[in-house]
Amino acid sequence: MPEQLFSYQQLADFTKAVFLKMGCPADHAETATRSLLSADLRGIDSHGVARLSGYVRLWEVKRVNATPAIKIIHETPSTAVVDGDSGLGLVVAPFAMKIAIEKAKQVGTGWVSVQNSNHFGIAAHHAMMALEHDMIGMAMTNASPLVAPTFSIDKMLGTNPICVAAPAGTEPAFVADLATTTAANGKLEILQRKNLQTPTGWVQDKDGNPSNDAHALKSGGALLPLGGDREHGSHKGYALGAVVDIFSALLSGANYAPWVPPFPAYVPMPAQQPGKGIGHFLGAMRVDAFRPADEFKKSMDHWIQGFRNAKTIPGEERVLIPGDPEREFETERITKGIPLLDAVVADLDMLAEKFSISFLIN
Amino acid sequence: MPEQLFSYQQLADFTKAVFLKMGCPADHAETATRSLLSADLRGIDSHGVARLSGYVRLWEVKRVNATPAIKIIHETPSTAVVDGDSGLGLVVAPFAMKIAIEKAKQVGTGWVSVQNSNHFGIAAHHAMMALEHDMIGMAMTNASPLVAPTFSIDKMLGTNPICVAAPAGTEPAFVADLATTTAANGKLEILQRKNLQTPTGWVQDKDGNPSNDAHALKSGGALLPLGGDREHGSHKGYALGAVVDIFSALLSGANYAPWVPPFPAYVPMPAQQPGKGIGHFLGAMRVDAFRPADEFKKSMDHWIQGFRNAKTIPGEERVLIPGDPEREFETERITKGIPLLDAVVADLDMLAEKFSISFLIN
Repeated sequence: MPEQLFSYQQLADFTKAVFLKMGCPADHAETATRSLLSADLRGIDSHGVARLSGYVRLWEVKRVNATPAIKIIHETPSTAVVDGDSGLGLVVAPFAMKIAIEKAKQVGTGWVSVQNSNHFGIAAHHAMMALEHDMIGMAMTNASPLVAPTFSIDKMLGTNPICVAAPAGTEPAFVADLATTTAANGKLEILQRKNLQTPTGWVQDKDGNPSNDAHALKSGGALLPLGGDREHGSHKGYALGAVVDIFSALLSGANYAPWVPPFPAYVPMPAQQPGKGIGHFLGAMRVDAFRPADEFKKSMDHWIQGFRNAKTIPGEERVLIPGDPEREFETERITKGIPLLDAVVADLDMLAEKFSISFLIN
Repeated sequence: MPEQLFSYQQLADFTKAVFLKMGCPADHAETATRSLLSADLRGIDSHGVARLSGYVRLWEVKRVNATPAIKIIHETPSTAVVDGDSGLGLVVAPFAMKIAIEKAKQVGTGWVSVQNSNHFGIAAHHAMMALEHDMIGMAMTNASPLVAPTFSIDKMLGTNPICVAAPAGTEPAFVADLATTTAANGKLEILQRKNLQTPTGWVQDKDGNPSNDAHALKSGGALLPLGGDREHGSHKGYALGAVVDIFSALLSGANYAPWVPPFPAYVPMPAQQPGKGIGHFLGAMRVDAFRPADEFKKSMDHWIQGFRNAKTIPGEERVLIPGDPEREFETERITKGIPLLDAVVADLDMLAEKFSISFLIN
């Protein structure tokens, strides 16, 4: 598929200009840009600038508020609930994560559940905010229902990702960022574009039968929880997705389960919504609330080196540490640029025209 | 396989007598019995009284201390590190969970990482202690290395389970308790006894090739992380098992990764252990640190009913809520008794003789 290379700065300038045109305050536009483009840098192309026009459409139908009054509506020394006031999740989640970090400074850990938000980009961006404070960071979010629990035909959960980021010493940080499905929707989209079939265990058809059709969701099918089927542990992926839903939405008062608002602005909102917007859950644990940070980080280095030195199965060069692939993307893309598919470039051109922003290619 | 039925009380009296003969103080013997037998009640037969002789053997080789001085060695308002003093994990984990609950009462949440402990039975027992306080409970533990991370031949992680328990209103509590492998070792043991093969994705052989041999671990093979292989998301199961290891051992100073002590007393301890004993992580979050407990529990009821009413795939009667199967076992076994395999009964007879306890069958 034809693609073009852009520098991070080019895309950042453009993205920020779009958010400013939407009416976002300058600091929000800055934060939203950093959140969104962290996906492009880390190789999660489905969640980056390719979604910018999607956020704009949500703003156009008034589902995204460009000037939200994000606020704490309840708190204790180690917890808070944040009302995102329909703001961009790209801004609301970092706001909530900062609160978690401040609480961790005070009492060891901080835990923030968020209602009335929108899609927050990639979980890793928010969880990793904790690292520079020698804290373990956590981020989760619920999402619109694409996933059928074990034994279900109905789509009841989103891909509900979990990220845990832990600092190391001389080694790079451990960053586990995973959708609680066998495969993220972004991987399905890649197969769709290439007209390829999915491996068994990724999707089922509208009647709940196993399927290899990458387009299964368009004809009433569903993504499957991590594990794929009962025999391979799909009840565990389902349980993990459910935990994300409970922490993100049942604790905050956001919508949950099949009532989570869809990302595409043209999809009608579910009837009888039980809460407000979508929900996130952010956490921070100060390492030295448990153990001196230096000791912990030395142990992390030892742990990481142990796994790197593990003997590999035939045909594989090395055992990866969670976060390795994304960090390697980031290193490469910061220097060589970020490749965008022509379809994404066309989308940005459309935005440039809509907002009369001179696009940046030349 | 021939089996006999025992009442809960019979097994509890006997188990407590064994712990007392080991020299456990009365309150420890009581707690350890409740922890251990919760597995038999909930249908996790591999983790219950079938393991009693294993704990005794660990005590005989002085790896379990029957009279531990369990203590907090570091704390903040929302966190603590507990030194289990080589005590039974069945006692140490509830001790740590109580601290987590106390801290949650004070500051909203409590998080306790534990070093120098032993196997703690089933995670659900400890996590569920939070429920009566209208708290969400969490429990994790690392375990001896049986699991090969994605692309690895070496066994680097245990089955490292995670439990999250959340209270509901009129519905029973949500209790997700899962090993971070495709299948728990107990399920493998059942296939071994029946001389059956495993489904693909459960184990690999000593060279890292996919295998269906239920005995693969005895010839150098390994359990596989939830997902089974890279294409089906095994890097996610691996990452989750790694998170359990980090929270349980890197935060507490316990042993981690391949250095976790083995459960069988006859297996030699790993050389150059980096920490003390095995590690656990316990957490409690007061629901009303986020939102009035009644509101939350009403939402949980609504959530649960939504999933129960989801349309099922062909051949399945209903969509299960995490915790349903174990609760159904518990209801049945409390009234009808707990079935034990003859081999387990023989094991208990051996203990009865060793400690001159009159066994309880007649």
